Amino acid sequence: MKSFCKELFFCTSSRREFLCITPEVRRCLEESGIREGLVLVNAMHITASVFINDNESGLHADFERWLEKLAPEKPHSQYAHNGAEDNADAHLKRSVMGREVVVAVTGGRLDFGPWEEIFYGEFDGMRRKRVLVKIVGE
Amino acid sequence: MKSFCKELFFCTSSRREFLCITPEVRRCLEESGIREGLVLVNAMHITASVFINDNESGLHADFERWLEKLAPEKPHSQYAHNGAEDNADAHLKRSVMGREVVVAVTGGRLDFGPWEEIFYGEFDGMRRKRVLVKIVGE
Amino acid sequence: MKSFCKELFFCTSSRREFLCITPEVRRCLEESGIREGLVLVNAMHITASVFINDNESGLHADFERWLEKLAPEKPHSQYAHNGAEDNADAHLKRSVMGREVVVAVTGGRLDFGPWEEIFYGEFDGMRRKRVLVKIVGE
Repeated sequence: MKSFCKELFFCTSSRREFLCITPEVRRCLEESGIREGLVLVNAMHITASVFINDNESGLHADFERWLEKLAPEKPHSQYAHNGAEDNADAHLKRSVMGREVVVAVTGGRLDFGPWEEIFYGEFDGMRRKRVLVKIVGE
Repeated sequence: MKSFCKELFFCTSSRREFLCITPEVRRCLEESGIREGLVLVNAMHITASVFINDNESGLHADFERWLEKLAPEKPHSQYAHNGAEDNADAHLKRSVMGREVVVAVTGGRLDFGPWEEIFYGEFDGMRRKRVLVKIVGE
Repeated sequence: MKSFCKELFFCTSSRREFLCITPEVRRCLEESGIREGLVLVNAMHITASVFINDNESGLHADFERWLEKLAPEKPHSQYAHNGAEDNADAHLKRSVMGREVVVAVTGGRLDFGPWEEIFYGEFDGMRRKRVLVKIVGE
């Protein structure tokens, strides 16, 4: 069994943002030389998400509006977590969108359906945060 | 390390539907001959879900009602994604229910609790769509 | 490839509760002797969750309030699943929070970001329930 591990770094310019990171994950896979196995991609911070969906800007605007409806950022005082912090909503939003994805590696490639793309979902940004890419296989 | 990969195909007769796919996944596991490891089962489409829950029709009716409350299909015009498309709600519903499950394989069997069953959750159906089963182990 | 499997047991004193189980998972990893690979931690019951977030009591109170808003327990009669059962809300809450986490093992340690902790999320407690820890790697 081979294993490969790399941290990716992101610093968004706004509080909430979705970044397509499929190319970075693909480069990790090439670097690993692994042809059969599993890739785990996870946010290392608990106010961010890694998820798979469509790379379409209208949909991303829908996600933003929908998550704000399900778990609004303001007023900050509505959350017990917000004393020294102001990011309780980010913890809740990330719970909806998920911490991680596991993707199959087949024949040296990410074994994806037609529109699958990997996203980093930032819900408390404007600072440097990390994503872990772990690949195991052969 | 051994690895096994198979695509399952589903075409539901209605827009939204839940299909129990545990038997199909179990057949993949038998076919693979793998006795210790992990099974990844994921939707290959971004408007569908694979999740684990109870095989009980009342609960499935509750899921349908609840997901329609959290992310209603109509009016289609409420979503920026819906221009050429009409399935923005399906992307949101699938985000709640999840893209994938990872299941332990122990002694050649899906290592499940008493009521765990794997479901394909279709949110934009009436066409042929795929689920990936990837098994790695020994 | 090595594999390791252990069931953890929990019995909460209230219907809903969050328990930090990182120490138990860490002990499993030490016991396994695996230094590179993946850990799967999943609820074996469909009314409970395993998730990763912050070990902060204010946030946990926010989770409780938020989940009760998204999928209220009462009135029990609002759910088709609730005839003999009264726990439909627990199935929905667990769907939001997720069944499982997959964590990278690097250099014999859980490869975690600064605040990541693993939680058992109980939504229908006061009875003995199980969590599965499966580790594969080398």
